Amino acid sequence: MAKGNGDKAKLSKKDYDEQVAQLRADLVQLQVELQNAPFKVVLIPAGVDAAGRGDAINTLMGWLDPRGVETIAVSDPSDEERERPFMWRFWRDLPTRGRVGIFVGSWYTETLREEARSKKALADLDHELRRIRHFERLLAENGTLVIKVWFHLTKAQQGKRLKELLANEDTAWRVTEEQQRGHRIYDRLARTAEHILGETDRPGAHWDRIDASDARFRNLSFGLTLLRRFREHTSQLAKSPEKAPNKPKRIVALRPDGRERLLALPLDHKLSSKQYEEKREKWLGRLNKAIRRAKQAKRSVVFVFEGQDAAGKGGAIRRLTSAIDARDYRVIPVAKPTAEEKAHHYLWRFWQHIPRDGFTAIFDRSWYGRVLVERIEGFCHPHEWKRAFGEINDFEEQLVHHGSIVVKFWLQVSKEEQLLRFESRQNTPYKQHKINDEDWRNRAQWAAYETAVGDMLALTDTAYAPWNLVPANNKRYARFDVLRTACKQITAALDG
Amino acid sequence: MAKGNGDKAKLSKKDYDEQVAQLRADLVQLQVELQNAPFKVVLIPAGVDAAGRGDAINTLMGWLDPRGVETIAVSDPSDEERERPFMWRFWRDLPTRGRVGIFVGSWYTETLREEARSKKALADLDHELRRIRHFERLLAENGTLVIKVWFHLTKAQQGKRLKELLANEDTAWRVTEEQQRGHRIYDRLARTAEHILGETDRPGAHWDRIDASDARFRNLSFGLTLLRRFREHTSQLAKSPEKAPNKPKRIVALRPDGRERLLALPLDHKLSSKQYEEKREKWLGRLNKAIRRAKQAKRSVVFVFEGQDAAGKGGAIRRLTSAIDARDYRVIPVAKPTAEEKAHHYLWRFWQHIPRDGFTAIFDRSWYGRVLVERIEGFCHPHEWKRAFGEINDFEEQLVHHGSIVVKFWLQVSKEEQLLRFESRQNTPYKQHKINDEDWRNRAQWAAYETAVGDMLALTDTAYAPWNLVPANNKRYARFDVLRTACKQITAALDG
Repeated sequence: MAKGNGDKAKLSKKDYDEQVAQLRADLVQLQVELQNAPFKVVLIPAGVDAAGRGDAINTLMGWLDPRGVETIAVSDPSDEERERPFMWRFWRDLPTRGRVGIFVGSWYTETLREEARSKKALADLDHELRRIRHFERLLAENGTLVIKVWFHLTKAQQGKRLKELLANEDTAWRVTEEQQRGHRIYDRLARTAEHILGETDRPGAHWDRIDASDARFRNLSFGLTLLRRFREHTSQLAKSPEKAPNKPKRIVALRPDGRERLLALPLDHKLSSKQYEEKREKWLGRLNKAIRRAKQAKRSVVFVFEGQDAAGKGGAIRRLTSAIDARDYRVIPVAKPTAEEKAHHYLWRFWQHIPRDGFTAIFDRSWYGRVLVERIEGFCHPHEWKRAFGEINDFEEQLVHHGSIVVKFWLQVSKEEQLLRFESRQNTPYKQHKINDEDWRNRAQWAAYETAVGDMLALTDTAYAPWNLVPANNKRYARFDVLRTACKQITAALDG
Repeated sequence: MAKGNGDKAKLSKKDYDEQVAQLRADLVQLQVELQNAPFKVVLIPAGVDAAGRGDAINTLMGWLDPRGVETIAVSDPSDEERERPFMWRFWRDLPTRGRVGIFVGSWYTETLREEARSKKALADLDHELRRIRHFERLLAENGTLVIKVWFHLTKAQQGKRLKELLANEDTAWRVTEEQQRGHRIYDRLARTAEHILGETDRPGAHWDRIDASDARFRNLSFGLTLLRRFREHTSQLAKSPEKAPNKPKRIVALRPDGRERLLALPLDHKLSSKQYEEKREKWLGRLNKAIRRAKQAKRSVVFVFEGQDAAGKGGAIRRLTSAIDARDYRVIPVAKPTAEEKAHHYLWRFWQHIPRDGFTAIFDRSWYGRVLVERIEGFCHPHEWKRAFGEINDFEEQLVHHGSIVVKFWLQVSKEEQLLRFESRQNTPYKQHKINDEDWRNRAQWAAYETAVGDMLALTDTAYAPWNLVPANNKRYARFDVLRTACKQITAALDG
């Protein structure tokens, strides 16, 4: 075996053992610190074929306490994964706060592979890379430590490594045909990889390159990179300690036009009992047909119901679901997040409920809580809820890009009508549980909600996921309006 | 419309409204109590076609607080579901303690439908029904309130109902072709249903029948059944309050032969470094081939690693995984259960990690914790861990019946060797985190563990999922033995 190859990235066994002993102690300490830290670590090892990525991961796993780390293996997508937006499966597997997740396959795997095999349109690749940048920025802004490592070999080093493996019958099985093909088109693959790395090397999502020509140097560097990036991250955090968010004194509109639109909504629509029953059966039938068409077309439907307390969301949802085969939909009532949900980005729990192609999900309250109650009550920082408008638009765009039909309702009642309903709830034994102090507190914030709802309407009313405002002072009218609007929007999306 | 049909199950609107008002208040109270109760409610509405099951569910949902209840819709299985044992998807969707889960589709759906369509072998049906009985018994024994409701219509009533729906163009869409076919073979379907109901009407999993000929009577009865069964269940619980389990004074063997087998294992096998390296590469290559064969055959592999503290499970697992493509396996380290996991049956969290066809899951500790640490430390009641042997055998049988290959290892070290390893851990900085007071406490229970392990070996060493005992005093030998045994068992299963 020729020595050197001109590379200096070599380590003697003795040096390696010494440094590993120190590193292991440091990594144990790292995991102890991480356990109580307010963030998670997402570690993405990628690189050229035969660079020994698997070996490096295995070695690192041997140094870490297995209870605080998990590997996420991503192979060919299952139909449950294919039938949802591309990023769904990665959201599904994100580690919780305090843990390390090693993505053995990641959102890069397909991008790197596809490009290698076919001349995929550059526009497609650009779209993918934009999606990746958005996702990694979202993680980073949420405090996640994103570490991306690229294991590098020159073409000559790769050739030598493959040759050595093939020469020994006990190790030849480690070389796949894909790897041999990959070696022949090394230069082309390298150019693609350089492009992808360049386009996704961003603040908070930096690529670290590791010379993989010597196994000991490679494995050690991998562990040291984790350690260094972790220390940088914690010292960064120490410099700018997060203050606990406060309840804001005043809610100031970002976009007064949204509030104006809300206030301009006429609320005096009415339907008599008889009118309603006629219309209901007709629109239920049409909606049933529309949803069955969506199912046949393998499109999912995502309903979002927002509105003031007692605006009638629950009742409208029950009328809606009576038009859908019970096997095809799911209602997701959104209450305060659980401990597990809190250990994730606020969008995480909604990603968990994204329906498969052909199915319907109905959110009784939704991700918009971030820019409503969380904004008003100071449950998150201003920079967090301000960021949320863009994150939400991006999230809904992913749904629609995948083929989902997103139907959003804001049910609006007047302050007087809400009071009547609150009082009726208090006076009816089986409705008393529906009203509590929180509802009265929210009511006291009526003006603040008007402002927040206005901003929401103005900033998240997109062409692909528009807001439907429902006058809800009359329950019958509101239910009919929801049925009709749902029907029309779904039909338009299918025809379009 | 002809009145009566001779049935007395009718309610006037006035009576209905009065009774509903009372029922709703009671149901709200029920949900408040349930929230802090030590059990969950699994509600299964089934019945003949056109009995208005969907309407009854919708109505009940309108009466309940949506935050404490969820509907579980089961439609045609996804490939992720098909590629796992039949019961996987139901385990996946079980509600947590304190909640009501309404199974719109359930483990009965396919059984009831299949039978209707084809003359499926009776042996198959028997197998299904046995599986269902086992599952429901497991739920009931774990304290779950299982409520199964059968909505009944006579053939004449069903015909009348279908006719009414078809006569109105606004409601005709509610009648499917399947329902019309079903009506023609009403008698045959009814016989099958009677058989299924009879075979699955067991203590703790009783069927309640509801006359569905009148919508108001049906909906009210549905809610009243939930209420009545809940009250019976809680008063039953009040009579026999669960005492907190105590740490047992002495661990008495159920099956002394198991312990004898354990003690008879010779632990003096050794391998030199050179011998080991030769063998390792050879067996890694073979194992890689065996696992790839399993993948091609769409068989999953489930590894279980158990053993004393410091027996070398982690090291053996890392050698094993170096033979498997990183995208194809997942290591599941099993630590103390999380709050969410504790709110479920102890097997629940393991069901979550069952691999898809063609994939490998490696459990670093496992469901056997129930009959080892939980038994010895008194974390569960004697009747619970005694029941666990059968539940575990049933669980593993479901895996194997589905096509998984279950490979179980017990790594055995001597008491002296464990001491050496504990001391070495304490003296090596990067190993200190691997040893804590709990390890020493467990060591003090050495004899108790021998007894518990013996019982485990004797009672869960099945033909379909046998135990492999690994002499682990010499780490190299243990690692080699694990590789060789894994390879042999997988190959035998594929050849068999």
